[in-house]
Amino acid sequence: MATARLVLLVALVFGTSGGAWAAQEEDVAAPVIHALRLLAGSGGDLGRHGGVPCDSWRLAVEAYNMRDWQTVPASCEGYVGNYMLGGHYRRDSAVVVDEAVAYAEGLKLGGKGKEVWVFDIDETSLSNLPYYATHGFGTKPYNATSFNAYVLEGSAPVLPETQRLFRKLISLGIKPVFLTGRTEDQRAITVANLRRQGYSGWMKLVLKPVGFKASAIVYKSGERKKLQDAGYVIVGNIGDQWSDILGTPEGARTFKLPDPLYYIG
Amino acid sequence: MATARLVLLVALVFGTSGGAWAAQEEDVAAPVIHALRLLAGSGGDLGRHGGVPCDSWRLAVEAYNMRDWQTVPASCEGYVGNYMLGGHYRRDSAVVVDEAVAYAEGLKLGGKGKEVWVFDIDETSLSNLPYYATHGFGTKPYNATSFNAYVLEGSAPVLPETQRLFRKLISLGIKPVFLTGRTEDQRAITVANLRRQGYSGWMKLVLKPVGFKASAIVYKSGERKKLQDAGYVIVGNIGDQWSDILGTPEGARTFKLPDPLYYIG
Repeated sequence: MATARLVLLVALVFGTSGGAWAAQEEDVAAPVIHALRLLAGSGGDLGRHGGVPCDSWRLAVEAYNMRDWQTVPASCEGYVGNYMLGGHYRRDSAVVVDEAVAYAEGLKLGGKGKEVWVFDIDETSLSNLPYYATHGFGTKPYNATSFNAYVLEGSAPVLPETQRLFRKLISLGIKPVFLTGRTEDQRAITVANLRRQGYSGWMKLVLKPVGFKASAIVYKSGERKKLQDAGYVIVGNIGDQWSDILGTPEGARTFKLPDPLYYIG
Repeated sequence: MATARLVLLVALVFGTSGGAWAAQEEDVAAPVIHALRLLAGSGGDLGRHGGVPCDSWRLAVEAYNMRDWQTVPASCEGYVGNYMLGGHYRRDSAVVVDEAVAYAEGLKLGGKGKEVWVFDIDETSLSNLPYYATHGFGTKPYNATSFNAYVLEGSAPVLPETQRLFRKLISLGIKPVFLTGRTEDQRAITVANLRRQGYSGWMKLVLKPVGFKASAIVYKSGERKKLQDAGYVIVGNIGDQWSDILGTPEGARTFKLPDPLYYIG
């Protein structure tokens, strides 16, 4: 019963194609926030009910004070749900993208088309919120089987603020490069998902070789090094994990999008 | 009139010696939050009134998305005031320190007393909130004359969460080192202020040479390098600015305390 109601709420937010979320306004989201509060028994903006204060926990995650965590504190499920499904997540993302756009607009390009900008995919370019909303908002351990099944649906909705940056960069002559922890065998569905959600014009999509065993930082910084060695200038790099934006070469400027759902080291 | 009322409020929070803040509980702070709201015309937790959403701005500052900013957005004065004077700042700081204490307790020390932990001073070990509360909560440009006059009073109150970490480290056998952007000519008053607020037992207090012109990152990482070259192991490093914790050697683990009042690059 509770799960069925939650699925209904998520459907309400995302619509059938994900396009509904792109147009979502805060006043539309308000009743969803309220309903989710009732559902999860959460109350107030602080999400303090017994355990760690959830807003302080989220801040510590975003400022890289909290590392190597496995799951969202159980007592914060309702708080994280409200954060993600309400207007707060979108608003926080918009401020990051505003800053990235201002930075990009201020760049002086070399005129040879060598400037690139690295985009992570999951929770950066596409949202897996429909999955996480039915799997405890990060409070449950990662389940590769069910998560990969979700990825293979190719239905992840766009993160509209990131897409705004993506399009702005193309208009400025900066080439987007996707660099993702998704594996090479997920290339076709990932391309289909990206196109379906309105992405086009990227220079390159780098996926991880199947069976590759290094950490995300080692894998991603290694791929950025290859771009640099090929003569590209990484003027920007945006991701939802610190492991997207740490490790030389990071890119001239890095941006950390919010993600209170999971941690990748 | 408005200023006089604000001074009264700050006095209410800090008491005369600063000791009142150390014992401050959220329920005590509540009426202050309310009064400040009326004063500054702010409303709600989000602090969204016209300009940038203040909570998203603060998150972007803490996650190092917002860089080289000069002043707090004028529309966020009330929001930042509420954040700093209410329980929110203290709660966010407590979660960071909880994480630092857990990390320190998990360390295996070499047994030769070589492990050190670097502490910044302003907005890390001591609070300049009494100054900022009467100078627009960071919305006004930095005024070296009035700020230095405040520092020379030696009255900055303790940040109690940081002091909890400081004392825990000493009990574990890890030596605290203060590393501050305050200049060498402020040594005596800084020592007096630290002692008055209950700090004792630090291994070293490093102040900046008068007239030193490098950036904070260059200055501080250079001093950490000297510690390392002298045989010390920097197991931890805590500050309120990203420039406290960036730059090789950073320290084995870094912690970013909240600070929405000012930016030092």
